[in-house]
Amino acid sequence: MAFLAEADRLKGVERATHALGGARAENSAEHSWHVALYALILSDHAEAPVDRDRVVRMLLLHDLVEIDAGDAPIFADGDAGALAESEAAAADRIFGLLPAAQATEMRALWEEFEAAETPEARFAKAIDRFQPPNQNLAADGGSWRSYGVTEDTFERRVAQVITRGAPSLIEWLWPKVRAVLNRL
Amino acid sequence: MAFLAEADRLKGVERATHALGGARAENSAEHSWHVALYALILSDHAEAPVDRDRVVRMLLLHDLVEIDAGDAPIFADGDAGALAESEAAAADRIFGLLPAAQATEMRALWEEFEAAETPEARFAKAIDRFQPPNQNLAADGGSWRSYGVTEDTFERRVAQVITRGAPSLIEWLWPKVRAVLNRL
Ligand SMILES: [Ca+2]
Repeated sequence: MAFLAEADRLKGVERATHALGGARAENSAEHSWHVALYALILSDHAEAPVDRDRVVRMLLLHDLVEIDAGDAPIFADGDAGALAESEAAAADRIFGLLPAAQATEMRALWEEFEAAETPEARFAKAIDRFQPPNQNLAADGGSWRSYGVTEDTFERRVAQVITRGAPSLIEWLWPKVRAVLNRL
Repeated sequence: MAFLAEADRLKGVERATHALGGARAENSAEHSWHVALYALILSDHAEAPVDRDRVVRMLLLHDLVEIDAGDAPIFADGDAGALAESEAAAADRIFGLLPAAQATEMRALWEEFEAAETPEARFAKAIDRFQPPNQNLAADGGSWRSYGVTEDTFERRVAQVITRGAPSLIEWLWPKVRAVLNRL
């Protein structure tokens, strides 16, 4: 129960991405719910066959470390090494609130997600990158404006990850993103 | 994608229950994430053995109808027949945004949840009733204050549903709830 009570704090972690058509920032708890739903609906688009439920479990947990480490916006320039360190410390503390067997299970799911090697983790990473652009499209560019995002940065920071885990989704997304970026 | 874009609106449905220790109202998207996490962690407490992933799927979907029908606070007095009708119409419209096979699957999960007959649905219902009191406990009574909740109303509207799906959780919860209700 300490873990589930602590999880409440993810509702207070604001992301760069907007929710509700741009009305306000999305928080990481809402985002986690939305990507889990994306995975449930879009699992046929995974690059390799996936256990859909395992992807959902990963996505429910994937951002809990942000309670301590904060959200690192995808287009912000940060120190990747320092971030990885602070996220690992957060995982120690937060998953450590669980009984040992569950701590091990949930920590392993989070590490699998971070490593992005299994088909499930690659698809989960792709979905985690696919939902925010859709939020930005619904908010007329949303956080792309504040970060001055170009096609090139979008390709390197977003599209490549989606391509790796869900190639048909990036084909669907690119024309829509390009149209908006071109008039920002 | 129309379904997933529409789902964004659940982030704008405010519940009576508080989030973040009472700082603001919780919305139904955050709530849906939190209960899915509860189910993942607490599935051993189900009254009968359950498929944990099926429970998670149900809980991810269970409140989508609120996009049209709104949240009906558990302690508010409403017209149950009218609510059921408006939720069924909402399910028609919202699940109808999906391709036919998925619409059927997701609608069936939602109906299973609402019927509360299978072990998975009974446990999902129990979790849906177990998370809000924990939010209220963390907010020194939270929405119990505004609704003037007594032990008797809590027993009828909350405890009985938890007892049916997760009896050990209500044993854990009751003393904590009683202590707070007694000094509100
Ligand atoms: Ca509900």
